[in-house]
Amino acid sequence: MGSNELRVNGDRLWSSLMEIGEFGGTEKGGCHRLALSHEDKLARDLFCRWAREAGCTVTVDAIGNIFARREGTDPDAKPIVMGSHLDTVPKGGKFDGILGVMAGLEVLRRLNELSIQTRHPIELVCWTNEEGARFSPMTMGSSVFTGAIDLNFALSRVDPDGVSVGDALKEIGYAGDLPVATGREFGAYLELHVEQGPLLKEGGQEIGVVTGSFKARYFVATITGQAAHVGPTLMEQRHDAMVAAAALTLEIDRIGRSRGRDGRSNAPHIELLPNVRGVIPEIVKLSCDVRHPDANVALEMENELREAARKIEAERGVSISIEQYFEFGPISVHENLCQLIRDCADELELPRRDILTVASHDAVPMMDYCPSVLFFVPSDTGISHNETEYSTPAQCANGADVLLRAVMKLAA
Amino acid sequence: MGSNELRVNGDRLWSSLMEIGEFGGTEKGGCHRLALSHEDKLARDLFCRWAREAGCTVTVDAIGNIFARREGTDPDAKPIVMGSHLDTVPKGGKFDGILGVMAGLEVLRRLNELSIQTRHPIELVCWTNEEGARFSPMTMGSSVFTGAIDLNFALSRVDPDGVSVGDALKEIGYAGDLPVATGREFGAYLELHVEQGPLLKEGGQEIGVVTGSFKARYFVATITGQAAHVGPTLMEQRHDAMVAAAALTLEIDRIGRSRGRDGRSNAPHIELLPNVRGVIPEIVKLSCDVRHPDANVALEMENELREAARKIEAERGVSISIEQYFEFGPISVHENLCQLIRDCADELELPRRDILTVASHDAVPMMDYCPSVLFFVPSDTGISHNETEYSTPAQCANGADVLLRAVMKLAA
Repeated sequence: MGSNELRVNGDRLWSSLMEIGEFGGTEKGGCHRLALSHEDKLARDLFCRWAREAGCTVTVDAIGNIFARREGTDPDAKPIVMGSHLDTVPKGGKFDGILGVMAGLEVLRRLNELSIQTRHPIELVCWTNEEGARFSPMTMGSSVFTGAIDLNFALSRVDPDGVSVGDALKEIGYAGDLPVATGREFGAYLELHVEQGPLLKEGGQEIGVVTGSFKARYFVATITGQAAHVGPTLMEQRHDAMVAAAALTLEIDRIGRSRGRDGRSNAPHIELLPNVRGVIPEIVKLSCDVRHPDANVALEMENELREAARKIEAERGVSISIEQYFEFGPISVHENLCQLIRDCADELELPRRDILTVASHDAVPMMDYCPSVLFFVPSDTGISHNETEYSTPAQCANGADVLLRAVMKLAA
Repeated sequence: MGSNELRVNGDRLWSSLMEIGEFGGTEKGGCHRLALSHEDKLARDLFCRWAREAGCTVTVDAIGNIFARREGTDPDAKPIVMGSHLDTVPKGGKFDGILGVMAGLEVLRRLNELSIQTRHPIELVCWTNEEGARFSPMTMGSSVFTGAIDLNFALSRVDPDGVSVGDALKEIGYAGDLPVATGREFGAYLELHVEQGPLLKEGGQEIGVVTGSFKARYFVATITGQAAHVGPTLMEQRHDAMVAAAALTLEIDRIGRSRGRDGRSNAPHIELLPNVRGVIPEIVKLSCDVRHPDANVALEMENELREAARKIEAERGVSISIEQYFEFGPISVHENLCQLIRDCADELELPRRDILTVASHDAVPMMDYCPSVLFFVPSDTGISHNETEYSTPAQCANGADVLLRAVMKLAA
């Protein structure tokens, strides 16, 4: 076949992205589709229908991961697997995760159109709760699949309203009967994702091959002061956990900024006990993280955070404990697969660069399970986890073209 | 009768305080009894039973205020009214509000024991939702009674779970059939309360006569930034509403501290949108206030707060709007009633001082309705809105002794 035929149908890909984006679609063009919500169910239902229409068999495992399978000619060949997720953060975008799933679907549709038989089966997986916005931890479905997280632990996680993952899966009809198939052998796992940052757009590249990651360390800082009346309590007698948390938040922000373009730090989630207008908060739990490409610098940043906490303890008359709850990086990059993506981009004459991922994605736990690769297309607005998240139809199609070529080479 | 007889039964008062404090009682000796909760219902039920056992008729109005009435000999005489509240903040104490109600009950019991008939009827009122911790605004029941707040507005207020005051009143059986009796004439209103601060204890006084108040101004600061991914988003490209809120929180704290022992400032309540680990918060709503005995200084503090917000807007790339939602002070002090309390304290040889209230109480809206007086007994631990809130049996009895004498003089 000619090289023109080895491209996806960009219009159809875009149309599918927009159609599935209507479930949870927001007025500002974004998408609000929390994991295992009613909107997630509707998006999953549409995905399953489309996958069956593309001739796939669809199965769902016990954590709600959906697998769509297109058989190959060799029953013993390991599947070549594409995947990503359909859930979003609150008021997120239509691309983060969804592009990887819809591009995989477009690959399957295009293979059908071209009547291409592959030796290996090809699978497309839609992982449960990548975002971790409703249920913590993130990359839940893929991590249960790889065995990094225990199934029963994951099923017992609850959202802020006390609803468990297990109950939410039953509620939307995605508590699958398939045992979580940890151990099933994959030939390769490929994930296309939007970059979520400005680098590809700034550099004029269309493809970013993930060759490593930032080192990220995630903590919960528990600040304990003393509850007291907001009125009669003299300022000098206060032990205000929220004022101390504010001081720590500014320090965390400063620590990231002090490392220039390679530093990241966050304190985006906070819980106050109590959180009422008449009481000085007694306990504040602040989720925070520090990230840097150099693991040693990330450790320095963590040490600065701990020093800042010691200083604030003394200044503000509170106690602060800092517990790590998650860690990310280094990741298990598969150099041959990285080179495959570079080669496909070059064949398509798409400018590309190697890039580090700052955030985790389903490909990250998968990298410890089978040969896996993660690659990015540009965020045209340079922003993600926002309703204005956007990649152009051409940017999306470029990524899907690379995915199609890579899958063809691996599955042939 | 001799002056010894004109004292309350301190043991009985203490025993009632401890018994009613068991509804919502916490392990650390405090009380967690949010307005119109099941625990509040149980405390109300016990109060109603005790009031009826003391020979009172008990009525409940449409906002759930409970009135216990002991008739006088003159049907045309205006009632002398004692009162306070039974609700607490989350993990609050057994004294804030409850002392005023239990002391009033002890006054009625003692009058019965002494077979004292008064010309005026005497009433004891238990106001709904003084704290404003579950439903905003605070001093709800008394403010509806005085007409400062509209009944239907109050009934429509919802808690964080979306339950309205009206529904919560029905749920616990305290949506009374009595119309809110705004306009009913009272001879006087007297409220005994714990100080909730350290001044009486520090000064060695047993009674504080409230002769004025701090000027307090309450705001919601809405900080609007830009949601974005916590990982790939460069620090220099962020508009983090929470980091800006942290900077504003520290400024608010500084503004109160800079006025020495007379300054107060708070930012105790915060809402983040979103409040998840993966997204830079877009919008933060910070409830805050500034307070000072001198209204001009309070205004200066507000101006400093607004200037700080302008500075943070520029530094952090966010927008901040500051809306006043409440104001407190000056209060309508009734000098004759203040003098009556001073005289009663002097007769009992209780050291006393005049004092300002920093917080509102049900007596504050009442001061605009009828001649009213508010007086304090010491907080022995100097702290309130905390499970360690404590006044000694003797401190409580002293306050009730003053209340008994004052009511006797007014109702005679």
